[in-house]
Amino acid sequence: MSGKQIALGPGKVDLLEAIEHTGSISAAARELGLSYRRAWDLVDTMNQCFKQPLVERIKGGKGGGGAQLTEAGRRALHTYRTMESKALKAIDPEWQTLQKSLHPSSRK
Amino acid sequence: MSGKQIALGPGKVDLLEAIEHTGSISAAARELGLSYRRAWDLVDTMNQCFKQPLVERIKGGKGGGGAQLTEAGRRALHTYRTMESKALKAIDPEWQTLQKSLHPSSRK
Repeated sequence: MSGKQIALGPGKVDLLEAIEHTGSISAAARELGLSYRRAWDLVDTMNQCFKQPLVERIKGGKGGGGAQLTEAGRRALHTYRTMESKALKAIDPEWQTLQKSLHPSSRK
Repeated sequence: MSGKQIALGPGKVDLLEAIEHTGSISAAARELGLSYRRAWDLVDTMNQCFKQPLVERIKGGKGGGGAQLTEAGRRALHTYRTMESKALKAIDPEWQTLQKSLHPSSRK
């Protein structure tokens, strides 16, 4: 889903999820094996592509600040995960057919 | 869909389609902007992952031989395209919701 930049995809959604449960971009980056710079760039792209930012920084507090999903961020994450599960469900019969036509070692 | 190798995906399916209407791996490669070597490797992977080969060479004839989809190849192509269209249909409401939450320049 993109113009020049890709607004949202599997990697960005995993990052949103990791920010949601770690409460910071750097912890989320570590969890996903991304550099902080890369994670920050992904967040920046999402925030630019969406009308409302998906991630916001939290200033102050004990840890010196972190990040959290905005309401728009939680909605985008939920919508994306719903799309994934609906798509998987919709293609299940064909998926099974394809799997059966593969050598067992090539199946997923 | 994979073990170590990915049996089928968007690029391989485009290649199957191009082989189907060009009747050769080299013409299909040209059409898709792939090197012959790359196209051949993709065909080889598909033929190894599936129980029955998806592409077969045609020996002899005017052009000195070409390639065509086997019955299994036509079935795999059709099944994959069906999966794509079913998935797109299944996610349409969420897709529309996401699109509306993007800046117009970021929409697809």
